[in-house]
Parts: sequence; structure tokens; C-alpha cells
Amino acid sequence: MMKASKYEAVEAAPPLRNNRGISILDLIFRVIALGATLGSSVAMATSEQELPFFTRFLKFDAQYDDFPTFAYFVLVNAIVCGYFALSIPLSILTIARSRAEKSRIILIIMDLVMLGLLTSAASATTSILYLAHTGSGSANWLAVCQQFNDFCHQASGSLIGSFGAVVILMLLIIIQGTALSRQH
Amino acid sequence: MMKASKYEAVEAAPPLRNNRGISILDLIFRVIALGATLGSSVAMATSEQELPFFTRFLKFDAQYDDFPTFAYFVLVNAIVCGYFALSIPLSILTIARSRAEKSRIILIIMDLVMLGLLTSAASATTSILYLAHTGSGSANWLAVCQQFNDFCHQASGSLIGSFGAVVILMLLIIIQGTALSRQH
Repeated sequence: MMKASKYEAVEAAPPLRNNRGISILDLIFRVIALGATLGSSVAMATSEQELPFFTRFLKFDAQYDDFPTFAYFVLVNAIVCGYFALSIPLSILTIARSRAEKSRIILIIMDLVMLGLLTSAASATTSILYLAHTGSGSANWLAVCQQFNDFCHQASGSLIGSFGAVVILMLLIIIQGTALSRQH
Repeated sequence: MMKASKYEAVEAAPPLRNNRGISILDLIFRVIALGATLGSSVAMATSEQELPFFTRFLKFDAQYDDFPTFAYFVLVNAIVCGYFALSIPLSILTIARSRAEKSRIILIIMDLVMLGLLTSAASATTSILYLAHTGSGSANWLAVCQQFNDFCHQASGSLIGSFGAVVILMLLIIIQGTALSRQH
């Protein structure tokens, strides 16, 4: 019935063809997000700055693992990057077999878990970096980014890839959900 | 075909009845999450501590709006709480009409948006509170919770409701997605 309608009516939107397009879009999104999270993880992990002079701080170099939140950010981006690498074969499977219902459900649930992890890591890092940029008057915390300018720039830049991957994960959940509800 | 199998086979799991149970579960979850986010928002907004003595800090009272992240936390919890209040009628609609496909899709997408907002607010607040508890040696930030002990306790407690609501939102997305894929 599906195969027949595919050639009979254009308006009927044949499920198999549509889901194939969705699956290819899914694969492209995953490859982009893989690159984005890899970039984020590497950018944060390599952000380091040594100051040419001694300040009132005891330490005169800044590294990502000075803040546990930044270390968490690197870890989560590496995990999500690894997940994307592993999910690509599953995504290819859904291109080859349009009715791969189990694969889609696994992808949606895992995407949801990764979305939670990545959103938490990116938000926590953003809030710490915001504090590092502005300081906090009431807590008497200084804006350390005034000293560690390059470090802060690189760390802030690494957020771009992470938030990009968050948006992609949300799109992936929506398009896979659409594919799942269509193929019945 | 569906209507016929409903009375023929018990193992066939009639779609209409199953989705009704899912919709009732959805409603219960929403009411719980409404209370949780309301509690979180109120707990954080009312957290305030005045110290009976002057410390080396210029200000001797702590309030939630000393940190922009805490103000964001209160705002997001209030938004999500309002969303749950508005989504309850829609959830009741899916109980009354089991095949309310559009309502379910709207609920899933809005749940996803709220999940993103709430995860980001809860994680950012957690990271700031962690810093307030432990301080940061390399940034020379003091552990202000040693002075503002009650404030920190109440702010930390308000995270429970928020993270509870995050878990409920994830479950809601999964069960609504299941209902959606079943009813075709």
C-alpha cells in the first residue's frame, strides 16, 4: 500500500521516502555535532595562560582544571562526542531500513540523556565564566578575567560548540520523534 | 482494524486504553512538577540572611539577587511552574480524547523547551553554589557559605525541586512519545 501510493499521489507524503530524508538529515546533524563537541572539549582542555608577572594571586597560571566545573565540561563534551561517534552507525541503520523503530527509540532516549548532560555542563560553565568576567561584589569575588584574558576568551569560545550541539540534539529528538510517529 | 482487535486479543494491547493510562500518569506528573518548581522558586526567592556582625565583606546580608544566576533560577522556575499550570488543561484533553495527536506534539515540544531552560538554570545555580561552598583557590574566591550558612542551605535545598522537575520532564517526554507512536 505504501509502495503503491508512493508513485500514485504526491500529496500523500509516502512515509518511507520521508523517513529516509529525515534519517539522512539525522546523520548530517550527528556529524556536525560530533565536530562541535570535539572542538569544545579540545578548546577548553587546551585553554591555559601563564602571566608574565606575579600578581596578588599566588598562582600565576590558569588552567581548565582549576575549576571543577570546567573539568566537568571537558568530560561531558568528550562523552557526548563519543556518543555521537557511536550513534552514527545506528543512524546509518535507520537510513538503510526506514522502519527501524527500535533504533529510533534508542536514539531518542540516548539523545535526551546527552541533551541533559550537555545542557548542564554548558550552563554551569557559562555561569562560572560570567562570574570570572564580572566578579561578584557581594561575595567579594574578583573578576579574574581581567588578568587571565586569553584563558577566558578561549574558554568562552569553547561554549559555542557546546550550545550548538545542544540545539542540534533538540532538533534530532524532534525529527526522530516525527519519523517514529509517521512510520506506523 | 484497531477497534476489532481491541475485543479480540488481550495480548494485542489496545491502543486507546493504554494511552488513557499514560495520559493520567502525565497529569499526575505535571501536578507534582508544578509543586516542585513552585517550591524551588519560592525557596530561592525567600532565601536571605543578615549577619549579626560586620565581616570583612562590605555587605552583611545575602540575598538571592546578589548573583544574577540565582535570579535566573527564580525566573526560570516561575516560568516552568506557569507552563505546568497552563499545560494541565491540555493534559486533561489527552485523557478525554485519546487520539489528541496535536496536543501531544505540542506538549512534547514545549516539555523539551522547558527541560532545556530548567536544566540550564539548575546546573548554573549548582555550579555557583558549589563555588560558594568550597571557594576557588586559584581565583582567590573565598567560600562565602562559611559566613552565609543559612542562606546557602536554603539555596541548596531549592535545587531539589528543580532537579526533580527535570527528571519528571524527561519522563513526560518519553511517555508522551510512546503514546504518540502507539496511537497510529
